[in-house]
Amino acid sequence: MATLTRDTLAALDAADKLAAFRSRFELPDGVIYLDGNSLGPVPKETPARIAEVVAHEWGVSLIRAWTEHDWIGLPLRVGAKTGRLIGGAPDTTVVADSTSVNLFKLLAAALEMQPGRRTILTETGNFPTDLYMAQGLTALLGRGHVLRVVDDPTRALGPDVAVLMLTHVNYRSGAMHDMAAVTRAAHDTGALVLWDLSHSVGAVPLRLAEDDVDLAVGCGYKFLNGGPGAPAFLYVAPRLHAGLKSPLTGWLGHAEPFAFNSTYRPAHGVARAVVGTPPVLSLAALEVGVDLLLKAPMVELRAKSVLLSDLFMALVAQECRDDGFVPLTPADAARRGSQVSFAHPAGYAIMQALIERGVIGDFRAPDVLRFGLAPLYVRYVDVWDAVSALRDVMRSGIWQEERFALRRAVT
Amino acid sequence: MATLTRDTLAALDAADKLAAFRSRFELPDGVIYLDGNSLGPVPKETPARIAEVVAHEWGVSLIRAWTEHDWIGLPLRVGAKTGRLIGGAPDTTVVADSTSVNLFKLLAAALEMQPGRRTILTETGNFPTDLYMAQGLTALLGRGHVLRVVDDPTRALGPDVAVLMLTHVNYRSGAMHDMAAVTRAAHDTGALVLWDLSHSVGAVPLRLAEDDVDLAVGCGYKFLNGGPGAPAFLYVAPRLHAGLKSPLTGWLGHAEPFAFNSTYRPAHGVARAVVGTPPVLSLAALEVGVDLLLKAPMVELRAKSVLLSDLFMALVAQECRDDGFVPLTPADAARRGSQVSFAHPAGYAIMQALIERGVIGDFRAPDVLRFGLAPLYVRYVDVWDAVSALRDVMRSGIWQEERFALRRAVT
Repeated sequence: MATLTRDTLAALDAADKLAAFRSRFELPDGVIYLDGNSLGPVPKETPARIAEVVAHEWGVSLIRAWTEHDWIGLPLRVGAKTGRLIGGAPDTTVVADSTSVNLFKLLAAALEMQPGRRTILTETGNFPTDLYMAQGLTALLGRGHVLRVVDDPTRALGPDVAVLMLTHVNYRSGAMHDMAAVTRAAHDTGALVLWDLSHSVGAVPLRLAEDDVDLAVGCGYKFLNGGPGAPAFLYVAPRLHAGLKSPLTGWLGHAEPFAFNSTYRPAHGVARAVVGTPPVLSLAALEVGVDLLLKAPMVELRAKSVLLSDLFMALVAQECRDDGFVPLTPADAARRGSQVSFAHPAGYAIMQALIERGVIGDFRAPDVLRFGLAPLYVRYVDVWDAVSALRDVMRSGIWQEERFALRRAVT
Repeated sequence: MATLTRDTLAALDAADKLAAFRSRFELPDGVIYLDGNSLGPVPKETPARIAEVVAHEWGVSLIRAWTEHDWIGLPLRVGAKTGRLIGGAPDTTVVADSTSVNLFKLLAAALEMQPGRRTILTETGNFPTDLYMAQGLTALLGRGHVLRVVDDPTRALGPDVAVLMLTHVNYRSGAMHDMAAVTRAAHDTGALVLWDLSHSVGAVPLRLAEDDVDLAVGCGYKFLNGGPGAPAFLYVAPRLHAGLKSPLTGWLGHAEPFAFNSTYRPAHGVARAVVGTPPVLSLAALEVGVDLLLKAPMVELRAKSVLLSDLFMALVAQECRDDGFVPLTPADAARRGSQVSFAHPAGYAIMQALIERGVIGDFRAPDVLRFGLAPLYVRYVDVWDAVSALRDVMRSGIWQEERFALRRAVT
């Protein structure tokens, strides 16, 4: 590749059809935000929408807002919109609870659907909470189910695997599975597949219906820009609805929640996976983020994301050639999500020094620097400026200062 | 009792030491709000606090807000404050998830602590979601546990009862259990007790530590005024912490969430009951409500609540003597919470006609009119005006109009 210059990247911004979306976000001056894969920024419409929900809907309608402003419909309404982002058929997706809790519901339901099989199969390096929730479930059941963690799960599929549980885009490396192929491989052995889409939704094209996916969960506060701790979503293929037994049988998943019957009877379809009263303020914020993403063509988002990532990796190779950064993200665009990651033994200190210069990525123990490249608001010149800052940090040696010694990293 | 007049009640307001708290809430003109037991109104500080969290904390600090604004500490910090409202010892209470999900965690943990016992005991008329969650858990476990629903649970205690699960204040009748006596009776038979405090917290004095309560859950959006679908809380007695196994083992309940280990290891104490990333916007709103309640002496709140309830019942007897209202709430103040309820065959239509006149209570199928009397903002004259409106509705016959025919009731 010819030497890249800032002008090259500025020209890409000038031609970027998605460029106008950046103005739809509050982005503080002096910051290059490359951590939208951990917490997306504030959409400009969000403060006014939340203020309206608080002052007008809650404040004036009070209890009547459940019907007057259809709060009661939020889990299904925002779920349906999220379903469009993941290529789900209508009535397959609801918003409720956290990703962890949704994973528990669907894992339990999957084991129930596979009575002769005992193994939950997953891969080394999956996001810890997914492993933890599976461990909690198998311990609770006490019926000999095991969580099996392997390096190459498609090769470990077999007659005892009830469910293959994978995160589509890895939170550390940014590597992305081939959803269609892996799902097919699992189905060929009689396993169900549960995908965690936390690092995919809003960032890469998803076709859950077309790929014949069984079950999925995902997070609202990363590329969906739904706000800190936004509620999560879950997806269930229509062919599994009739047999779906969520173990968390709450009143809002009842067929007639307001009949106040004493026996649980599941609501029709995926609506039964709603449990308690929805967190309206957080859900309203999430809806703004989802609505905004629905306005952007995913084909263009993906093309820009791929190019941002290619350029970031090329620039690190060009500007920081001898600094010891080891790319963790696949060079093949088809095999990665919308982040780039590098290993470096001084990763924590380097990231802190970068953040001090206004380039916000994040660090994952023991040695990973992550840069999220959300195509909705990250500019091509941001990639240039971020890598320039990284080069300057390395040249200056500032990252070796005592104040950047390891403290607890947080996301 | 001598005939009550509006002047009598206005005089009580003039002498009310809590009167100033009403000005701390947004209450729409022309509304008498008697549904704070379902959804509390907006504290005046809430809109500004939420706006600050969105614009300043999320908007400016972005991912750094988890440490810079201690979002990560919200579940324990707001939990500790809630713990003070329920008379819990320090480090016994966390805020997380919904009441339903918290109930599931603690019920599962209770069964795990009682390996030889198979019965979850509860009472007829308990809030449906509590029954549903227990049904979902026993079905999931598949080990012969049963949910036993009886009219008088303290008489049904016995060697097979693992946990007595009760709601402290009944959502329909407003009747309140004697927490200390019931807990003692359960302990005498070796059962644990799990109290649902959804209709108690913020409304009646609670002394969980003193009453030797084992486990409790409760709701943030009723008398805590934490906003629609506010996160819930859970309480675990310190003596049970070491053996506490929550089945929902999420990453924020891990001893070292940011070490990203692949094996779950529970955090110290009740912190292990936190599961996923906390919903920050909803939690920030809840904190405002909890802070406000902590400013009001519970002894005075309770005295006012009792008098409001006594007066409401006396006025219905005085003004609507022949209208067929059957009181469901105990006359004995020690046996009720902070609401009064009446059965009436035309309850739904009557409540709709009342709401049209600005008196907002609610209806619970098949025939219950509920009036929540939150002492923090309900005035004595509100009770007069509400019962006057009720009398007028009954005299006018307006409730018999077609437009008040039964539609779906919502809370």
